[in-house]
Amino acid sequence: MPTYKAPLRDMRFVLHEWLEVHHHLKPLDVFADVDNELIDQVLEESSRFAENVIFPLNQTGDQEGCTYQEGEVKTPAGFKEAFRQYSQAGWLGLDADPDYGGQGLPKILGINVGEMIGSANTAWAMYPGLSRGAAHTIHAHGDEASKTLYIPKLLSGEWAGTMCLTEAHAGTDLGMIRTKAEPLDDGSFSLTGQKIFISAGEHDMTENIIHLVLAKLPNAPEGTKGISLFIVPKYLVNPDGSPGERNGIVCGSIEHKMGINGSATAVLNLDKARGYLIGGEHNGMRCMFTMMNAARLDTGMQGLSLGEVSFQNALAYARDRIQSRSISGTKAPEREADPIIVHADVRRMLLTQKAYNEGARAFANWLALQLDIEKNHPDDTARTDASDLVALLTPVAKAFMTDNGYEVCNLGMQVYGGHGYIKEWGMEQYVRDVRISQIYEGTNGIQALDLIGRKVLRDGGEKLKKFGKLVETFIKDNSANEAMSEFVGPLAKLGQDVQETTMWIGMQGMQNPDEVGAAATNYLRLVGHLVYAYLWASMAQVALSKTEDKDGFYKAKVHTARFYYAHLLPETSALKRKIKAGSKILLELDEDVFAF
Amino acid sequence: MPTYKAPLRDMRFVLHEWLEVHHHLKPLDVFADVDNELIDQVLEESSRFAENVIFPLNQTGDQEGCTYQEGEVKTPAGFKEAFRQYSQAGWLGLDADPDYGGQGLPKILGINVGEMIGSANTAWAMYPGLSRGAAHTIHAHGDEASKTLYIPKLLSGEWAGTMCLTEAHAGTDLGMIRTKAEPLDDGSFSLTGQKIFISAGEHDMTENIIHLVLAKLPNAPEGTKGISLFIVPKYLVNPDGSPGERNGIVCGSIEHKMGINGSATAVLNLDKARGYLIGGEHNGMRCMFTMMNAARLDTGMQGLSLGEVSFQNALAYARDRIQSRSISGTKAPEREADPIIVHADVRRMLLTQKAYNEGARAFANWLALQLDIEKNHPDDTARTDASDLVALLTPVAKAFMTDNGYEVCNLGMQVYGGHGYIKEWGMEQYVRDVRISQIYEGTNGIQALDLIGRKVLRDGGEKLKKFGKLVETFIKDNSANEAMSEFVGPLAKLGQDVQETTMWIGMQGMQNPDEVGAAATNYLRLVGHLVYAYLWASMAQVALSKTEDKDGFYKAKVHTARFYYAHLLPETSALKRKIKAGSKILLELDEDVFAF
Repeated sequence: MPTYKAPLRDMRFVLHEWLEVHHHLKPLDVFADVDNELIDQVLEESSRFAENVIFPLNQTGDQEGCTYQEGEVKTPAGFKEAFRQYSQAGWLGLDADPDYGGQGLPKILGINVGEMIGSANTAWAMYPGLSRGAAHTIHAHGDEASKTLYIPKLLSGEWAGTMCLTEAHAGTDLGMIRTKAEPLDDGSFSLTGQKIFISAGEHDMTENIIHLVLAKLPNAPEGTKGISLFIVPKYLVNPDGSPGERNGIVCGSIEHKMGINGSATAVLNLDKARGYLIGGEHNGMRCMFTMMNAARLDTGMQGLSLGEVSFQNALAYARDRIQSRSISGTKAPEREADPIIVHADVRRMLLTQKAYNEGARAFANWLALQLDIEKNHPDDTARTDASDLVALLTPVAKAFMTDNGYEVCNLGMQVYGGHGYIKEWGMEQYVRDVRISQIYEGTNGIQALDLIGRKVLRDGGEKLKKFGKLVETFIKDNSANEAMSEFVGPLAKLGQDVQETTMWIGMQGMQNPDEVGAAATNYLRLVGHLVYAYLWASMAQVALSKTEDKDGFYKAKVHTARFYYAHLLPETSALKRKIKAGSKILLELDEDVFAF
Repeated sequence: MPTYKAPLRDMRFVLHEWLEVHHHLKPLDVFADVDNELIDQVLEESSRFAENVIFPLNQTGDQEGCTYQEGEVKTPAGFKEAFRQYSQAGWLGLDADPDYGGQGLPKILGINVGEMIGSANTAWAMYPGLSRGAAHTIHAHGDEASKTLYIPKLLSGEWAGTMCLTEAHAGTDLGMIRTKAEPLDDGSFSLTGQKIFISAGEHDMTENIIHLVLAKLPNAPEGTKGISLFIVPKYLVNPDGSPGERNGIVCGSIEHKMGINGSATAVLNLDKARGYLIGGEHNGMRCMFTMMNAARLDTGMQGLSLGEVSFQNALAYARDRIQSRSISGTKAPEREADPIIVHADVRRMLLTQKAYNEGARAFANWLALQLDIEKNHPDDTARTDASDLVALLTPVAKAFMTDNGYEVCNLGMQVYGGHGYIKEWGMEQYVRDVRISQIYEGTNGIQALDLIGRKVLRDGGEKLKKFGKLVETFIKDNSANEAMSEFVGPLAKLGQDVQETTMWIGMQGMQNPDEVGAAATNYLRLVGHLVYAYLWASMAQVALSKTEDKDGFYKAKVHTARFYYAHLLPETSALKRKIKAGSKILLELDEDVFAF
């Protein structure tokens, strides 16, 4: 049976020692009361909840799964009670607006709480995650009445929420959705259609579910310009806020999936379901991006969450499992064999896990801080800069963190050898659970197109230059620091590579847009490595500056930074070559001769 | 629901046009009657069996799994009947000795039949696979009486076989096994202990199961030198060959696994089970390697088999699924959107699948031909050369083919987007099923140590030089061929890289053996790429030489070779850098500070 212990020491390093978060939050009025003590207290409380309440439901939830009967869905034993406890403790609205029942704490705190919840039980975490997403979207686009009616109950856990986008024939291409919304006399709408892949789409946790549904009004423009967003409650809401009549949105079935089996993935049939337009006619795509941008970072976090718990168990197993002797001579003469952590190849796997996880944690915290600044900083330029960095790096967070998370979970399973393949040991569940994160909320291929197309080339590289400036400043600041030269040199080189590669793709793309698509996935990984290389160098700089290191934490941090540079960054040399291979090799083969 | 069609066109290309197998089999007396017509006939018959009989049992077998009750195991519906049909048609003994009921056909034919069976149903294929392995081992190490008693019934499918190696505390390190074998007065032995992870260890397919069990005699030397091999039938065999008394080897439970759910993975409890020593006292390790070498290539084949069926379905889906428009303008104006195969990033995934699969098929066929030559060639030098190439490249086949197979199956699932994660569509099963191939029969990390340590460095690179010679000869033969220059140049460069890297590791390893372990995994991939680069160049040369190409097959072959060189070979530049990073970065961090 796997175990989980929240990585509080590393979280505190990232927040207090590396980012110095208090310094950044101070100028943001709304967080005037958020001091380091409060942050640590929240982290500790949430670690107890994650470790003691929901982690014990992780394997049982996977085994039991959700069950469907006549429109109703039963979640695994314990899920409902844990959701009740979680809501009552106020975790649902941790970083939400206090005017509507939130606690008004910074996103950067929410991201760390989210990591722990996801490590403990990713399937369970889907339910509060979707509620939060729905509340967030209503907050951004709903009128005052909607906000007052729905958000407090979504954040109190009395009700839950969903996001209903996908249809069987329309996943990536939401412009093709067919769900229709006919106007009714009272200003509401009658929605008919079918939605699939709806996470938390039906369950037994709450007395009501507030669905946010994309549909098309009559005579809507073609494609994504014709999409509108509607609030469609499972039970219509009475004027006093109590649930009333059952609405015509009914779960037709749930999917049987590779993983996250405790999370209900519903087919929802809408048959003249009553809905309420939010965000204005044909404005659904904009509203949807509000939902999706937050969801993309949260999805990226699943890569870290599952990677972290996989690493912890692989490490424990590697220290405990004895098998063969070290190639350079016996290391544990008192035991029948050496623990497998003495083998260099096992170390390679563990260090890869550690380096990707801690890099992801730094990235997520840094990005969450930009989100807090974007929303709350008094200075316009500071807000714009943060907003640009968030826009640029959200697809990187989603794709790079989940691709790495999948590798990390596979390595954790590999460390276990044959036991890794057996359900009882828990490692294969992490592989199955994390796999979906590369697919949903826009496949990682779509993230790559978003990055190179919309975020980099569309503004002539302006946003990328803002990030490049941070890297350049760091390099300048550390160029005289000899202890940092092992990082500064390769970082500068990689920064130039990214710049040069971006220019190359931009030039090629002007001749032939397919070149952009051909380069996209490899380009996203190249940028991801630049981001992590910058973050690792920056963390190493902080760790190197410490004069005291009682427990060896800083030594380990510097060592892991070195490992990142020595073993993970070399991928960039392959990425550059693949990008330069161009689009012709991908596209010129006639599809008819693809297979024989 | 996925589909499967055996890739006969490519198999015929590999066998007849590229390898010119008939030319190689001719000098081997035993295969005098094996002409191309016979080969094609066998391929076609086995493709029908794979497509029509066992492929339909693949998803149902995964869903139903095996069930355990009081020592008995029930296999999924249809498995037993398919096994009966398969055995009766003579497939079990296809490439086995005719003196004991085999058909005496070449291994190179067996490997292609095996690919199809594995594509159709890998879990089912485990049962005949284990029977064949047991027969093969008894053939190599048993006395005449044992051969006559067991092999014909193993090959007729009346009985089945297993290999019982692993114990709970002894997987990689078999020297630690504790199962004891006490001599009895009649020359047989009494075995007591527990074996785990025994594939096909218990089932309802046959009237008897012949277990091959590793155990230790009293006062056996320590470690692997003290292991002996025993035949332990489930039912003791009467003098007339009929099953007699139930033996003391009983299934205690079966594992719940990530995949290959139709394959029973048993815990076997031996309580004074009667066993018969084969291969001599304390000679079990040598016997085991007979089993394992064949099994390693077969395991590598699982990477190809599952990769092939994943590719076929991903390709069909990519041509059928419409979603968005091509980035360079509408390609299918008559449809509501373009099929996703127009997108360069989807092409990247499909071509990666195709290039790894066809490379693996070429590799497996080439290696199987070496096995046929090793066993049957009249010339001593030819046999020794073939034997050296087999020894060198078996770990590469096991690890490189399965690591690539896992990537290929994950890409196939990714092409499906959200549907890839849903069991009904079948793509996630291939990912789950293929994952074990990286672990069992020696983890891929162990294969890497076997390659660099035992196969390359131990004889000072002699075996590697034999392979290098083939590459050099090919380069020389094609150096004047301008059409081949795009392959010859990079191949020569990679050959030098491998040579230089091997020397470097050898030199480092003399100072510090940990350097060998540190380099192993990346080195195996480097050698794997050299092998595939050689095979792809060689196939391209044949395809380029064709003057007629009615169906575009040769064009596709050359194109895929180019894709391999442009998109997959670049990994080698990263591998070289990682190898040169050395062992210190992996080993110097104190294990106590690994986690916080």
